[in-house]
Amino acid sequence: MRDVAVIGVGMTNFGKFLDTPIKELGRMATWDAIKDAGVSPKDIEIAYVGNACLGVITGQAMVLGQIILKEVGIRGIPITNVENACASGSSAFREAWMAVASGMYDVALAVGAEKLYAGDTRLSTKALAAGTEIEYEANLGLTMPGHWALRAKRFMEKYGTTREQLAKVSVKNHKNGCSNPRSQYKKECTIEEVLNSRMIADPLTMLSCNPLGDGAAAAVLASKEAAAKCTTNPVWVAASALTSGSYDLDREISRNQLEEVAGRQAFEMAGIGPEDLNLAEVHDCFTIAEFMRVEGLGLVPEGEYGNWMDEGWSEIGGKLAVNPSGGLLAKGHPVGATGVAQVAEVVWHLRGEAGKRQVPGAKVGLAHCSGGGVASDTPACCVHILKK
Amino acid sequence: MRDVAVIGVGMTNFGKFLDTPIKELGRMATWDAIKDAGVSPKDIEIAYVGNACLGVITGQAMVLGQIILKEVGIRGIPITNVENACASGSSAFREAWMAVASGMYDVALAVGAEKLYAGDTRLSTKALAAGTEIEYEANLGLTMPGHWALRAKRFMEKYGTTREQLAKVSVKNHKNGCSNPRSQYKKECTIEEVLNSRMIADPLTMLSCNPLGDGAAAAVLASKEAAAKCTTNPVWVAASALTSGSYDLDREISRNQLEEVAGRQAFEMAGIGPEDLNLAEVHDCFTIAEFMRVEGLGLVPEGEYGNWMDEGWSEIGGKLAVNPSGGLLAKGHPVGATGVAQVAEVVWHLRGEAGKRQVPGAKVGLAHCSGGGVASDTPACCVHILKK
Repeated sequence: MRDVAVIGVGMTNFGKFLDTPIKELGRMATWDAIKDAGVSPKDIEIAYVGNACLGVITGQAMVLGQIILKEVGIRGIPITNVENACASGSSAFREAWMAVASGMYDVALAVGAEKLYAGDTRLSTKALAAGTEIEYEANLGLTMPGHWALRAKRFMEKYGTTREQLAKVSVKNHKNGCSNPRSQYKKECTIEEVLNSRMIADPLTMLSCNPLGDGAAAAVLASKEAAAKCTTNPVWVAASALTSGSYDLDREISRNQLEEVAGRQAFEMAGIGPEDLNLAEVHDCFTIAEFMRVEGLGLVPEGEYGNWMDEGWSEIGGKLAVNPSGGLLAKGHPVGATGVAQVAEVVWHLRGEAGKRQVPGAKVGLAHCSGGGVASDTPACCVHILKK
Repeated sequence: MRDVAVIGVGMTNFGKFLDTPIKELGRMATWDAIKDAGVSPKDIEIAYVGNACLGVITGQAMVLGQIILKEVGIRGIPITNVENACASGSSAFREAWMAVASGMYDVALAVGAEKLYAGDTRLSTKALAAGTEIEYEANLGLTMPGHWALRAKRFMEKYGTTREQLAKVSVKNHKNGCSNPRSQYKKECTIEEVLNSRMIADPLTMLSCNPLGDGAAAAVLASKEAAAKCTTNPVWVAASALTSGSYDLDREISRNQLEEVAGRQAFEMAGIGPEDLNLAEVHDCFTIAEFMRVEGLGLVPEGEYGNWMDEGWSEIGGKLAVNPSGGLLAKGHPVGATGVAQVAEVVWHLRGEAGKRQVPGAKVGLAHCSGGGVASDTPACCVHILKK
């Protein structure tokens, strides 16, 4: 297996862009990544494009990659459209990594794009529910907020985690989002505001949930030789892991078996441990999700993230900056785009280009996305570790 | 790049199965392939699952692979869902091939599954139209039959092809379908019946078009070493090519630039020529499509397939058996399943297991799928060459 570098990244602002077609969002992100890489569209040899919700929302399915990429003049090459619920963008990135690591291609493109908000939140909810096996979850009313509320209750019971500790995730991530020009939300909030915002599914309030939004992100990956022609500042893919199956086979819903396996595989592949990480972009679709994922991935010992929140250890400048971008809670979560946007964020930090939210001296970062059905055992979890 | 063998294939009957869920179709095909390979579900290290229409038809998207594979106890491994219009199944097969050829995985699974018929043909038509960029094609009324009718008219004008010659494709493929126990149609038809069936889009009549239907197919791929443990009768993947972009950049709609490039790439990779093929499963979504694809791929010289039809050269026992399975016209076209089903058909012939439709002494076969938008330049074309 060959070394693979990320040589360029791009990302649109995340937000609600009712008047911007998804192909324009995809075009902007792709073009930014190509310019950032210092390559031409003609240099791209293979491309993978992740999307999750477009088919259900608009009826446009199957060929989104072709639709986006012709906008930047990329045609002729293999283009493959990838879906894996909230890990769609990460899965596209992983396929692009495999294409280069295998030695088959020298320069690959990964794009994630989503237009989740179509003026009707019920339609967005229907589309998001399609990430589960709908007959066992969505059709029975178990949408994502309901599911995570159940898990939160069990987690709080088991570890003594308080509502205030959960709320601190949102406070931290909204604070980080204020320093990210591409973030959907750039407004700080207090613990009280999180707790007092509208109840969605107890204990999760409105400010405990990620927003609906649109956006796109892209990354150009290259072999060592191809990277050397374009950049003196490559970021290396140290590990890529994708797991499926069950969140938790023994039905202890406070655990994340999926993350435990993916985290173990990724750190083994990278030859490092969690203590070597400077930042982690973790799939904080809800406040409780950041808790469960950082512990599931082994970034924080079991049951200790409440204490981390109290001590501020996951803030920028703390032991391990978690979601310095603002995460899904503040930066937003256009589903198919998120995995690639996380990679872009890690790359900017490792290059020292993250501006006001820069994690000082960042050398190693992790990007994690998880999605899919829980009660129906149909999830996907994707972890990448990047290093200077 | 390592040699990759197909060590097991499976396929459901194709047809209209209103009472059978897609996960059951997928389960049957997957289980058949696993049994055929002589492996256990635990031996599968990575899986790719192709589907095209389910999200638009039912609202179930994103995680079909996870939904199908848990039915045979496959979980934990990387599962990635793939879409590429009519080439969705082929693209899943290609990704599985790449995973093994790269050396990253030893045993991979490719599945294609589709439930295209939901009791309402308008819904199926809407879903199929999503393979184009809908705002430029489907929403303007240019559905697939209309598009292929336009191309047929131009082709007939340019090469003097007659309606009778086009009809002979359907006659041949329906005859072949009668010998295929898994075929949706098992009823011969005459030239007159093809010409006199209901007009859909002049010159394409009902019997010139592939039917709506459901089905699934699966293939297990393995490295040379892994294959040696399971089978003494492996079939090798000699070439894999995937192209995108434009059917024809100079807008001569009688040509297939996409097929020309993919065919050239595949034969170059396999180190053989079209004259070495014994059979070809070609994407005959309409009678004219078989004409354009066999010529586009270089299997038959430009403008000569009409003569081939008159001479019976593409029948089983002729120069090159084209669509011995019955093709899309008779065997059926559950979109996401088709590419993998073509591979299964070629494998059965190369193993000498194709029963009454066996191509005598078959040693090399080709499988071709093409789909996506034409006017909107969003197609995908995938070609595989398999050999004993």
